[in-house]
Amino acid sequence: MKLLAAVVLSIVTTLSILAAVPFSAKSADDESSPIFGIKIPPGYRDWRLISVAHEEGMLNDLRAILGNDVAITASREGKLPFPDGTIIARLAWSYDPLEESAKAFGRPQSFVAGPPKNGVQFMVKDSKRYATTDGWGFADFTNGKPGDEALHKTCYACHLPAKDRDFVFSRYAP
Amino acid sequence: MKLLAAVVLSIVTTLSILAAVPFSAKSADDESSPIFGIKIPPGYRDWRLISVAHEEGMLNDLRAILGNDVAITASREGKLPFPDGTIIARLAWSYDPLEESAKAFGRPQSFVAGPPKNGVQFMVKDSKRYATTDGWGFADFTNGKPGDEALHKTCYACHLPAKDRDFVFSRYAP
Repeated sequence: MKLLAAVVLSIVTTLSILAAVPFSAKSADDESSPIFGIKIPPGYRDWRLISVAHEEGMLNDLRAILGNDVAITASREGKLPFPDGTIIARLAWSYDPLEESAKAFGRPQSFVAGPPKNGVQFMVKDSKRYATTDGWGFADFTNGKPGDEALHKTCYACHLPAKDRDFVFSRYAP
Repeated sequence: MKLLAAVVLSIVTTLSILAAVPFSAKSADDESSPIFGIKIPPGYRDWRLISVAHEEGMLNDLRAILGNDVAITASREGKLPFPDGTIIARLAWSYDPLEESAKAFGRPQSFVAGPPKNGVQFMVKDSKRYATTDGWGFADFTNGKPGDEALHKTCYACHLPAKDRDFVFSRYAP
C-alpha cells in the first residue's frame, strides 16, 4: 500500500507540475477578446500595408492598416464583401512632431509615429461565427491584453457608417 | 554576290527587329533616376512597414515608409549605419478627410490616404557606389517616371538634418 501511495503521490505531483506549466507560461498574448474570442494573430506586424490614416481629436494618432494575404488580395481587387479568412490589423502610434524638420522649416512640418497608442485592433471575417455582426469579429489589445466587454460592444456600432464598404473604412492605397 | 547581299540584308533586318524589341518594350518603369541611376525596385509595394507620417504645408500628404528585408532587420535592431543593400521606400498619398467619420463626429475626425501624391521615393545604401553622398543613392518617381536632375540634387541636402540617424528620418514603429 505504501508503494501504491507513493506512485499515486508521484502521479499527482507530476500532473500538478504539468498543469502548472501551461498556466505559468501563459502570457497576456494568449488572451482572447471578449464577445468575439479573438487572439492576437502571430506575425501580424509583418503583414503588408493596406493604407495609412491620421485621427484627430481625442484619438490624436497616426495609424497603419495591415492585412493578411486574404485581406491584401481582396483590398487590391476592391471586391466586396471581404471573404472569410480576412484579417485586418489596425496599428496606431502617438502623433509626434519631428524635431529635425520643425527646425529646418521653422514651424511644425512633419508628424511621425511615436510610441504605440490606442491599442492594436483586429477585424476577423467569419460569416458563420460572427453572423450577428455581419460576419465580422473584433478585437482590441493594449500591451497584449484585450480590452473589456464594454469596449468590444462598441466595435460593430462604430463601424456601421462604413456598412456600404463591408464595415471597413480603409481603401487600399496603391 | 546577290545571295551574299540577301543574307546580309536578312541579318541586318533581323538585328534591327531584335534591337527594336527591347526599345519598344521599354516602359517608364525601366527608367533610372538621374545622378544615382536607380530603377523602381520590383515588388516594393509588398515590403513591410517601417513607419507612417503626415507632412503638412505644401506637401500635405499621408505617407508610409516601407523597407526591403535588409532595411526591416536593420530598422528593428536600431543599429546604425544601415548596411549595404538597404532599400527604403517612401510612398505618399493625398491627405483626405474621411466623409463617414466627419458625418458621425460632426467635424473632421479621420484623415485617410487618397490618390498617390508627391511621387514615390527610394533610398539605396551602397557605401562604395554612393561614397560622395555618405553611402546613399536617391530616386524619385512620379507615375513611374523619374524626376529630373535638379530635383535629385536636393535629396541629399534635404536628408542632412537626419545625419545622426544615417540620413533616415523614420524610426521603426513597433
